[in-house]
Amino acid sequence: MGYLMSSFKRSSCPVANLLEIFGDKWTLLVVRDLMMGKQTYKEFHESAEGIPTNILADRLKRLEKEKIIDKSKYQDRPVRYAYKLTQKGKDMGPALWAMVEWSNKYIPGTLSAEEIKTSLK
Amino acid sequence: MGYLMSSFKRSSCPVANLLEIFGDKWTLLVVRDLMMGKQTYKEFHESAEGIPTNILADRLKRLEKEKIIDKSKYQDRPVRYAYKLTQKGKDMGPALWAMVEWSNKYIPGTLSAEEIKTSLK
Repeated sequence: MGYLMSSFKRSSCPVANLLEIFGDKWTLLVVRDLMMGKQTYKEFHESAEGIPTNILADRLKRLEKEKIIDKSKYQDRPVRYAYKLTQKGKDMGPALWAMVEWSNKYIPGTLSAEEIKTSLK
Repeated sequence: MGYLMSSFKRSSCPVANLLEIFGDKWTLLVVRDLMMGKQTYKEFHESAEGIPTNILADRLKRLEKEKIIDKSKYQDRPVRYAYKLTQKGKDMGPALWAMVEWSNKYIPGTLSAEEIKTSLK
C-alpha cells in the first residue's frame, strides 16, 4: 500500500490518531457517501470520483474493523451486503460539514451545504 | 506518488475538492503543526509522527502553491524559510477542531481540546 497507509510513530495527538483511521481521501469519500444515504457497493462505486473497486473493498473492510460501519446481508445469491454508519461513524458529521464550509468559501463551483441538505430531504 | 496522490474524476462535491488539497494525512499534520505555532522545517520534522523529509518538502511546496501557507526568509546562509498559515489555511481550524472532538470521544488517550488549548497559551 506504500508509505501513505503506513502508521505514524505513536502520538497522543487526536488529529494524528483520527488520520490513522481516515487518513486517505478515499476513506473519507466512502464515509461521505454513507452520510448521503448510500448503502451498497454498487452505489459507492457509482460516485462521481470513480473509486477503484479494490480500494473500495479494502476501505469498507477497514471501516468495519474500526466499527465506523456495520454491514447486513440483503441478498443471498449472490451474497450482497448493505452498509450503514454506526454512531461512531455518524459522529464524523461535524468534521465533514466543516470541510464543506471551507470548500464553499475557497473552491468555486462546489455544492453548497444548502444544496447538499436539500438533496438529502 | 502512487494512486493516493492521483486526482479524482471531476466532482462538484466540496469534500472531494477539499481532499484534492488536503487528502493525505501528512498534509493535515503539517497544517496542524502550523496551527500550533510551528514555523520551520526543523520544527515540523521534529513532530512526534516522524514525517520523512522528502514528504515534508513536497507537502510544503503543495501548500504554498495552494496559498494555504506563506513563506518568508529568516536566514541567508544557508537560506532558511519560516512558514505561516494564510487566512485560507487558518480557516481549516474548525475542521481540525471537529476532528479533535471526535478523537477525544472515540480514541482513548488522545490529548483533549482543553489540553491542546492550554499548551497554545
